[in-house]
Amino acid sequence: MKSKSSVIRFFYASSEQSADLFYLSGVFVPDPYLSILVGGQSYAVVNQLEYSRVRSQSQYDEVFLLESIRAKIGQQLDISAKSVAPAQLMAYFAALHNTKQVEVPANFPAVYYAQLLAAGYELQIACEPFFPQRAFKDDAQAAAIRQGNRASAAGIRAAEQVLKASDAVGNRLVYQGRTLTSERLRMLVDQACLQLGALAQNTIVAGGRQACDPHEGGHGPLRPNELIIVDVFPRIQKTGYHGDMTRTFLKGKANDAQRRLVAAVREAQLAAISKVQDGIDAAAVHGAVEAVFKQRNYQTRRSGEGFVGFIHSTGHGLGLEVHEAPSVSSRVGALRTGHVVTIEPGLYYPEIGACRIEDVVRVTADGYEMLSKCHYRWQLK
Amino acid sequence: MKSKSSVIRFFYASSEQSADLFYLSGVFVPDPYLSILVGGQSYAVVNQLEYSRVRSQSQYDEVFLLESIRAKIGQQLDISAKSVAPAQLMAYFAALHNTKQVEVPANFPAVYYAQLLAAGYELQIACEPFFPQRAFKDDAQAAAIRQGNRASAAGIRAAEQVLKASDAVGNRLVYQGRTLTSERLRMLVDQACLQLGALAQNTIVAGGRQACDPHEGGHGPLRPNELIIVDVFPRIQKTGYHGDMTRTFLKGKANDAQRRLVAAVREAQLAAISKVQDGIDAAAVHGAVEAVFKQRNYQTRRSGEGFVGFIHSTGHGLGLEVHEAPSVSSRVGALRTGHVVTIEPGLYYPEIGACRIEDVVRVTADGYEMLSKCHYRWQLK
Repeated sequence: MKSKSSVIRFFYASSEQSADLFYLSGVFVPDPYLSILVGGQSYAVVNQLEYSRVRSQSQYDEVFLLESIRAKIGQQLDISAKSVAPAQLMAYFAALHNTKQVEVPANFPAVYYAQLLAAGYELQIACEPFFPQRAFKDDAQAAAIRQGNRASAAGIRAAEQVLKASDAVGNRLVYQGRTLTSERLRMLVDQACLQLGALAQNTIVAGGRQACDPHEGGHGPLRPNELIIVDVFPRIQKTGYHGDMTRTFLKGKANDAQRRLVAAVREAQLAAISKVQDGIDAAAVHGAVEAVFKQRNYQTRRSGEGFVGFIHSTGHGLGLEVHEAPSVSSRVGALRTGHVVTIEPGLYYPEIGACRIEDVVRVTADGYEMLSKCHYRWQLK
Repeated sequence: MKSKSSVIRFFYASSEQSADLFYLSGVFVPDPYLSILVGGQSYAVVNQLEYSRVRSQSQYDEVFLLESIRAKIGQQLDISAKSVAPAQLMAYFAALHNTKQVEVPANFPAVYYAQLLAAGYELQIACEPFFPQRAFKDDAQAAAIRQGNRASAAGIRAAEQVLKASDAVGNRLVYQGRTLTSERLRMLVDQACLQLGALAQNTIVAGGRQACDPHEGGHGPLRPNELIIVDVFPRIQKTGYHGDMTRTFLKGKANDAQRRLVAAVREAQLAAISKVQDGIDAAAVHGAVEAVFKQRNYQTRRSGEGFVGFIHSTGHGLGLEVHEAPSVSSRVGALRTGHVVTIEPGLYYPEIGACRIEDVVRVTADGYEMLSKCHYRWQLK
């Protein structure tokens, strides 16, 4: 009697680049390798460089040595072991589990998809997210994100200290005798993160008009009397979880327009956070931000080459990726207990400057739990 | 008369994760987006968050605003602009260029491959590497790699200084009153890299038996009289190019076996480097390392759970990725003028310890040019 054939699921990625794979494996592997899910068990096939480390540190039920498997397949197919390609590895494991039904994630490499298709497998693309449970954070995962935000806060406080200790010299800020640039301040922020075991990438330290482009990292001299956005989203190297916090500072004297802008963003953030609880539509949280901005007469519109106003969503899921499910935007979908999201309204007007304030919350049955902590003082004398 | 239809090539990736895309675009975009190559021109479709930055900083011939294109497609298909999916964007551009012939890179997401296939496109997977010219570095790219290695060297020198300033207290090293761990030393190395504008990820600081697992990053206390591998491969944040250097240190007194091991690795490295020149088979360079180890009677073999001896290839291409073409291993293939590769023989025996020494060379017509520089003193008193 033939056993009922089941679906075999293949990943081919690096667990450093794929959060799903790290979620599955619990171990960072820098180069792409084959992972297999079948019959409730998980397997990995890694080369001799990774073998003992992955065996001892990962959550896989079994780890196979690539070189051994290749030798076996090579014998079967009468080809050299070294020429055994990833799709042949996959075919070997599919045959071992007596199935032709293969499921792969959306970002599975097209080259192996095409090869399996040509070899007669019934291929399915899995729905995204591949591990829907990744969006729901338990206490340990929430603690890891909190730890990430301690690193974020350390970075933000480092920026604050440097700005406080800087002087306005003409139209520039000067710190310890040298012009303070975005690049230099970013380096000091990133060093502070590293001291807490967190790797910061693409930290934003952007002032004035530059900050009005939300993905501009910032470059060149920082100036007094301008709003400066500091957005820090480092990854704790051990756990893989991120922090993500933003504060907006101004060194010198703020004008009325800047003060109103910052007040509006903070009010919008509080309005959005107060909406958060199990079952709330993410669009309602996003709508709370829009309502505050509308009431205060901040318009969002196209302006020349770019856009001004509230030009991004209110937030996003945070975990093993900086941006993951769920989105806090006008898209339909409810926030649920365990979801961890950023709440980060912002306003961007080149003639005033830009302000974004970002914290992280975990959704609870009747509200939320803050996973980030840092003060909101923004004017630095 | 219908114009001859041409092949349209699609990418869908983040230029932070895809070195090919960064090579094409010259701009870091954190989230996946659509890039198009057709008729000798390159295009990108990015959202309003990225639009002005990508327009001003990238090498694309034209940048399209995602929201506008979605609105157009939404009208054509009578669906909401927000529901327009990536494969529909691709179909729009294929129609615009009057072609059904699509080529995608090997790592193109399977989900869009499957959707384009279902929509009747003739799909081709491009040969790897997608941009073969990426392996050939011009003077500016070599300079960027040199800069990466200045950061690597700064990290290695930071490790050296800390080890020098440490004391052996019993079976541990103590630095500034506290036990010196791999984690702490790694952090100091990574901070030194940051000061030169380079982001270090997965820096290896591993001593004793840990270092015998080449992908083990190292953890816990560092000990006197043990070989400690320091492997630093940071990425210059501005240019995207990496450095990659390794030195092996020992704090305290080396024994004969350790001395012989280090001498053999350095001799093997020199033997391999001396072979490098345009046209040489990479396998011959790898073979030079093997010959030295064989002559000195260092065997490579399986041992219990793992492997001992010379358990990896001699080197790999270096550039926008830490590991890229060409490989310096037993695989067939000649090194060519402009190739940049690491030369990093190593020996790994748990009872002795591990040693790896790594430098970077650019292949020239009649030899090589060193792209890394750091001394080879390894015994630290």
